Amino acid sequence: MKRITKYLIKNSLKRIFLYRACLVRLKNMGVERVFSYTLANETGVTPEQVRKDFSEFHIKGNKKGGYDVNDLLEKMEKIFHRNKDHNIVLIGMGNLGLALSKYQKFVQRSMNVVATFDIDPFKQKMRTDIPVYPMTRLQEIVDRFRVKVAILAVPEISAQEVCDELVRTGIKGIVNFAPVLLKAPNDVIINNVNLCNELESVIYYVHKQMSNNGRKNIELLYGDMKY
Amino acid sequence: MKRITKYLIKNSLKRIFLYRACLVRLKNMGVERVFSYTLANETGVTPEQVRKDFSEFHIKGNKKGGYDVNDLLEKMEKIFHRNKDHNIVLIGMGNLGLALSKYQKFVQRSMNVVATFDIDPFKQKMRTDIPVYPMTRLQEIVDRFRVKVAILAVPEISAQEVCDELVRTGIKGIVNFAPVLLKAPNDVIINNVNLCNELESVIYYVHKQMSNNGRKNIELLYGDMKY
Repeated sequence: MKRITKYLIKNSLKRIFLYRACLVRLKNMGVERVFSYTLANETGVTPEQVRKDFSEFHIKGNKKGGYDVNDLLEKMEKIFHRNKDHNIVLIGMGNLGLALSKYQKFVQRSMNVVATFDIDPFKQKMRTDIPVYPMTRLQEIVDRFRVKVAILAVPEISAQEVCDELVRTGIKGIVNFAPVLLKAPNDVIINNVNLCNELESVIYYVHKQMSNNGRKNIELLYGDMKY
Repeated sequence: MKRITKYLIKNSLKRIFLYRACLVRLKNMGVERVFSYTLANETGVTPEQVRKDFSEFHIKGNKKGGYDVNDLLEKMEKIFHRNKDHNIVLIGMGNLGLALSKYQKFVQRSMNVVATFDIDPFKQKMRTDIPVYPMTRLQEIVDRFRVKVAILAVPEISAQEVCDELVRTGIKGIVNFAPVLLKAPNDVIINNVNLCNELESVIYYVHKQMSNNGRKNIELLYGDMKY
């Protein structure tokens, strides 16, 4: 049965990203060992929260002597299966798709966009580092590179249709940049990245802050995050 | 005092975005009135959650007769101050910055990128719809267009420096695409959009799902979202 996948990424997973960013910074500063309260302090959560999140993601450490920074980072890599390469396809080579196909950070984190797709024959002839194929070759490429995850950067009008096609070829996860709610089977993970919403959220908080006349609104920001 | 702004956008605000997307869809289908349970069903939350979120954002309706779809949408526009135009600056005209500067959806939602900035003199000469200025003109443009919000799309190495500069000119909200944790004063809102994290989250869930051997992992996805 197709349903709208409504999930948001869990806050605990988001916090893991936050801890990782902190650990990378600490590592660059030459820090070798870290305590949960250091990470808590750096990221604005309680030490209990850090330990709870670590336990949820099966990250163990010696509580007394603190955690080894390199060891923690290695364990976090494993959470995200960074020890293997991940092949990804990208659909839609408009402005955003083109920028995403050139995004170096993906490669640095072992996420390889192996092929891009666009229905526009002109785009299929573009000189790009990564080939641009017609949609007819999707199944072949997905099979050949064992692709499980796709980036969707098509206009909203064709997003559902392309999503259906991705699901048919065996794609199990989609990062969707089209501002629509996609319907997909239960076993397909859809992560909606809505750039307008990200910008609007900031505008919302800025106005809220300004109309509060500078009064602290940290409660507002941290409200239901259990931070 | 500068601190790392650790906030994530509240889940209730994210759900408002979700309800809005549903309402737009219902409106396009010709639906005029909607009940909280309809929205709940469409977005996967409980009707109580819908009403609680509405009350948090001061959205009122006649519970008995349901909500008027157009009226709800209008109220949501007001939450995001869509009735006014918002002037935005964009810093960093690399691939991603260029794509964001061309992103039509921002304009459609009254968010206008009035100017972009880049330190590269070559980019300042690019033929783009929106002018590309050197950073020396930031203060002048921010003052002239009363800009409060900026999009940061510079390399991570210069992100903190540019962030400091934005704060000095009076910017109060930043959508940060650089994968670093920025330090900023308490009254500056920073929304980190980390594209790698978005992709890695999906890879994480897909692997989890596959290693679960197809077992439903809805609990996992909805775990701490109180959905």
